[in-house]
Amino acid sequence: MAMEFLSDDWLLLSETARRLYHDHAARMPIYDYHCHLPAEPIAADRCYDNLTQAWLAGDHYKWRAMRSNGIAEHFCTGGASDRDKFQKWAETVPYCLRNPLYHWTHLELKRYFGISGKLLNGDTATEIYEHCNAMLRTPEFSIRNLLRKMNICLVCTTEDPLDTLEYHQKIRRDSFEIRIHTAWRPDRAMAAENPTTLNAWIDKLAALTDMDIRTMADYDDALRKRHQYFHDHGCRLSDHGLEAAVAEDFTKPEIESIFSKIRMNQELNPLEIAKFKSAMMLSFALMDWQKGWVQQLHMGAMRNNNSRMFNKIGPDTGFDSIGDYHTAAPLAKFLNWLDKTDRLPKTILYNLNPRDNEMMAAMLGNFQDGSVPGKIQFGSGWWFMDQMDGMIRQMNALSNLGLLSRFVGMLTDSRSFLSYPRHEYFRRILCNLIGEDVEKGYLPRDMALLGRMVEDICYNNARNYFSMEC
Amino acid sequence: MAMEFLSDDWLLLSETARRLYHDHAARMPIYDYHCHLPAEPIAADRCYDNLTQAWLAGDHYKWRAMRSNGIAEHFCTGGASDRDKFQKWAETVPYCLRNPLYHWTHLELKRYFGISGKLLNGDTATEIYEHCNAMLRTPEFSIRNLLRKMNICLVCTTEDPLDTLEYHQKIRRDSFEIRIHTAWRPDRAMAAENPTTLNAWIDKLAALTDMDIRTMADYDDALRKRHQYFHDHGCRLSDHGLEAAVAEDFTKPEIESIFSKIRMNQELNPLEIAKFKSAMMLSFALMDWQKGWVQQLHMGAMRNNNSRMFNKIGPDTGFDSIGDYHTAAPLAKFLNWLDKTDRLPKTILYNLNPRDNEMMAAMLGNFQDGSVPGKIQFGSGWWFMDQMDGMIRQMNALSNLGLLSRFVGMLTDSRSFLSYPRHEYFRRILCNLIGEDVEKGYLPRDMALLGRMVEDICYNNARNYFSMEC
Amino acid sequence: MAMEFLSDDWLLLSETARRLYHDHAARMPIYDYHCHLPAEPIAADRCYDNLTQAWLAGDHYKWRAMRSNGIAEHFCTGGASDRDKFQKWAETVPYCLRNPLYHWTHLELKRYFGISGKLLNGDTATEIYEHCNAMLRTPEFSIRNLLRKMNICLVCTTEDPLDTLEYHQKIRRDSFEIRIHTAWRPDRAMAAENPTTLNAWIDKLAALTDMDIRTMADYDDALRKRHQYFHDHGCRLSDHGLEAAVAEDFTKPEIESIFSKIRMNQELNPLEIAKFKSAMMLSFALMDWQKGWVQQLHMGAMRNNNSRMFNKIGPDTGFDSIGDYHTAAPLAKFLNWLDKTDRLPKTILYNLNPRDNEMMAAMLGNFQDGSVPGKIQFGSGWWFMDQMDGMIRQMNALSNLGLLSRFVGMLTDSRSFLSYPRHEYFRRILCNLIGEDVEKGYLPRDMALLGRMVEDICYNNARNYFSMEC
Repeated sequence: MAMEFLSDDWLLLSETARRLYHDHAARMPIYDYHCHLPAEPIAADRCYDNLTQAWLAGDHYKWRAMRSNGIAEHFCTGGASDRDKFQKWAETVPYCLRNPLYHWTHLELKRYFGISGKLLNGDTATEIYEHCNAMLRTPEFSIRNLLRKMNICLVCTTEDPLDTLEYHQKIRRDSFEIRIHTAWRPDRAMAAENPTTLNAWIDKLAALTDMDIRTMADYDDALRKRHQYFHDHGCRLSDHGLEAAVAEDFTKPEIESIFSKIRMNQELNPLEIAKFKSAMMLSFALMDWQKGWVQQLHMGAMRNNNSRMFNKIGPDTGFDSIGDYHTAAPLAKFLNWLDKTDRLPKTILYNLNPRDNEMMAAMLGNFQDGSVPGKIQFGSGWWFMDQMDGMIRQMNALSNLGLLSRFVGMLTDSRSFLSYPRHEYFRRILCNLIGEDVEKGYLPRDMALLGRMVEDICYNNARNYFSMEC
Repeated sequence: MAMEFLSDDWLLLSETARRLYHDHAARMPIYDYHCHLPAEPIAADRCYDNLTQAWLAGDHYKWRAMRSNGIAEHFCTGGASDRDKFQKWAETVPYCLRNPLYHWTHLELKRYFGISGKLLNGDTATEIYEHCNAMLRTPEFSIRNLLRKMNICLVCTTEDPLDTLEYHQKIRRDSFEIRIHTAWRPDRAMAAENPTTLNAWIDKLAALTDMDIRTMADYDDALRKRHQYFHDHGCRLSDHGLEAAVAEDFTKPEIESIFSKIRMNQELNPLEIAKFKSAMMLSFALMDWQKGWVQQLHMGAMRNNNSRMFNKIGPDTGFDSIGDYHTAAPLAKFLNWLDKTDRLPKTILYNLNPRDNEMMAAMLGNFQDGSVPGKIQFGSGWWFMDQMDGMIRQMNALSNLGLLSRFVGMLTDSRSFLSYPRHEYFRRILCNLIGEDVEKGYLPRDMALLGRMVEDICYNNARNYFSMEC
Repeated sequence: MAMEFLSDDWLLLSETARRLYHDHAARMPIYDYHCHLPAEPIAADRCYDNLTQAWLAGDHYKWRAMRSNGIAEHFCTGGASDRDKFQKWAETVPYCLRNPLYHWTHLELKRYFGISGKLLNGDTATEIYEHCNAMLRTPEFSIRNLLRKMNICLVCTTEDPLDTLEYHQKIRRDSFEIRIHTAWRPDRAMAAENPTTLNAWIDKLAALTDMDIRTMADYDDALRKRHQYFHDHGCRLSDHGLEAAVAEDFTKPEIESIFSKIRMNQELNPLEIAKFKSAMMLSFALMDWQKGWVQQLHMGAMRNNNSRMFNKIGPDTGFDSIGDYHTAAPLAKFLNWLDKTDRLPKTILYNLNPRDNEMMAAMLGNFQDGSVPGKIQFGSGWWFMDQMDGMIRQMNALSNLGLLSRFVGMLTDSRSFLSYPRHEYFRRILCNLIGEDVEKGYLPRDMALLGRMVEDICYNNARNYFSMEC
């Protein structure tokens, strides 16, 4: 049986898969518990001027593909016109066959703009650009309406502890029916590699909290104030970016001494940095535990590898990649620090290198304490792994080594308001995976059982796992 | 073609697979060369009182699943009644879809208890529990009869060098027609991380061998006595659990000095521990080589990660996981130490992290010396990898980088007398793998050739490889 | 639909795959940009005396398989007759089912010798041996005619900087219509682990370049002379074998001091070796950049693991395997050294351990600068990974994390003149991969688009990427 690209039954290669998707998955709301959408445009409910603004500004996935295709930086992050940038992207798309961008691109064109049966390339660029731009400029394509089209019930953005959350307050005041929560991302609070930058950040924190931050104890107090502030504004989730997990033994005096060095803008050695980060991560985890939050650990990225481009255009511009760190021992040690005094919060572990999927999926079991289903979660395929192969491998590892049925499922992790069809993409892949197992006899053909499992992974598990109204 | 869950042709998705399984694989006896079954119940030939005793007592796989499903420890290893524990397990089973436990559970219910067409869950728990208990209490379900049902010719249990092997002697005196061998597992003899525990063990060894153990030479002599004792009782196989392979350079005086420290209950530093383990592993390997034994190296487990639970209920309770150690260089060095003086015994290498499959499968070739087919073996998917995906990946790595045809095949590695259908599971997977290759034209449709290959992997290779009567 | 082993549509499991292969892939010339064929036999255009000489002399893949099959060294690299060696190999072949050797062997017998419908084994050995030998001894089976049979347009062999390239000159003088280029492989120039061997090599370099090599600056000059010499003889490609990437910080005085130690035959410590290699690799890369060459980095082999056999029969005899090195950080650092002053040459990265595929494929994007499509390439499945599973995994990783469309495709990496059907093998696998995606609806059914992509990967991309006439 040949399947048509992007048809209604796309990616659903068996009858069981189709029934699971159409009767169960497709009907569930989207609970997007982690993304990097900016809150400001939601608060302002603005419209995009054109598809380049909506699609290419800030999308390092697309920039990477364009550079790989021999497109000059001028057309990626440079000074070219929006129209010219779009043209170069359109000319790159046919070279993206088998890359997730090829699926995302055409799925977004179809779902948001109704473009179907036409592939984006250099020849179709003008027509598609003008078609989409005309739609984007209408009120029905404002940011909030883009979100409304996708049956979303909740979105968690990600903010620095210094964020005032003013946009979230504005959105709440507007009674926007899609709940927009924040998540606490304090990476900058422990970025001790650069004492100057960290100090500047601490100074801002001092100003914001109206505190004098001289000691580690002060610092901890100030951070707890902000944690409480986030909590008061509905935050129930933290997020941490790490190369590998850190769990270096430390003493309180050592950390005080390290903190003094930081405040005096002194360079730290790698061991001091590791001790400081370990102390900070432990402290953050305890805050989360005390308030019943979920902590997320994103492990394995190797960032800012290209210093020439970093100096030109800064971080998060497409020059990060997958590391090959050792994580098993420090991660087990860190989680055990918390568990041994029964203060381990609900935790989601994400790894960027798929070679570590089985290690990570097996890690969960070490700290499942029976208090809540799926207390320790293996996060969905992340960043470079957020594609069909990555999702399947993550779900297979979790299935073989843990309980897929208790998985909290998909999140967009995205910076683009047009990326919500990725939930549909995930759901089709999930349903096909289960459907294929049924066809092969690996699973019993019990549609009630399987339908419930699919609905749980698509929505119910996340809603039950996170303590956020929805 | 849709296949029915657990049907006669289960997992056999092509006609070639079905013929290979039914005409070849299914007819071969089971040669279970490695497991963790206790010998005592075989000697006593007792009956289980109920399915919880047979299935859940000691099964950390199931405990992990239950904890992941939010079941309190009380129902896993705690004081709940056997009936209540079974209920909680039954309620967990539907959440195990896609986990190997789902297959194992229903396959065992079918093969031992004839339960078919009924899935275990909270609703069916009572009926299934009572049905199985009634059968278990009859003599036909005694331990020996459980083994007899499965066409087993040989079982190797695993014992500490201090074991008297009295149960093995009893079994042999009874002329039980299934050969029950022991395997030598001296992990505790080299557990230098804890000198106190190790010293206590050495004292027991001294008592048992009636020797005074003051020097490393004494220790080596005493261990050789036990090795000879095991040999005299039919043992032809050793087994070693390691994080990563160890091959730290050492001198005899260094080891003598380390041993003195151990005997004085002094803590060792990591380098001393590594040197001691390297010396011990080398010594054990030489003993095996001298007697024509096979050595098994189980590498890659990260154990006892949860100190709270370790303190409560001890080791082997479901808090181990997959490590991410470096093994290639020390493993090559260790094997080369032995090979360079032509004293490398037949060796089976097991790795727990599937990311190392190809490294491990390629390692074999470095030390295949043409003396015997498949002298160095890549062990079947182990522990967390003992499931369909793990088995397939192990067999594919071995196929691509070595000779699958010379593989000694499946072992249960189990602590449960009900786990013998795992051989059937492995065989179906093997036959399906080969059958699929034939359908795709990857292999010639030569049933004589393929049938022999299947029979060899299921039974003949192991029987020829190990020097044990069967 | 069942496919017949080695039929015309072999490995092409869908109609789309068959059309892509027969209408597009099969018609493209072979551009073999990397192999280890010796130039001398091409220059001499000699004939093989028998199939053992053509097939088994120097083929460590086959030796490994034979040793794994329990065949004594006498029949691999030892003194057995060519006929007896062939017999032992033929008897091993049936045990190679599922190993790439099984495919390669029968594909080569079919494509070069027209043997079809007959499998090689102990019984058919005599007939096949005599049939092939008779053909090999005719002029139509001379080395050059073997190459001509395969629609090859270009071959890059690999030579040490000390090579005089006399055979390449001879071949060029003969106006052989297949372009035989050299590639620069200076591994021995930086093999500082053994100062004595390195010194002897440097002395030869001094003699060849008529220079006095006392300082690192002298050494660099002499190597540049040879680099220019290779360039003048048409070389446009370098190749480096590394365990992991090296990028240890160094200063010029440090390297001068290390070089002095080398010239005085003094042992270096590991840090000195790493610094020296880092300096050499940087220097080689800059040479390549200045001349517009492509550099190839082959990373991850762990070599000469069996010291007994190394002492008997030397390197490259089948005792190498797959390492588990950390490569991400040093590789990123090395490439960044070059990129930050805009002097990074076009680069192909090969990794031997498939667990690193995603890390490697993501690495590319860090240094794609938009100057040329696919400037940084992820090399095709290499050595142990040069088989169906390895190729598919490499292409899937590249597809998911980069642009498969810009891939320069297959190379033989071979030491055997009979291995050119590996290009056909690769192309069938590529076409099947894309065809399967189309059948599943993952790709649009646009045969013009897909056909061009296939032709590009098979030939056009390589021709455009490398600056060599063809």
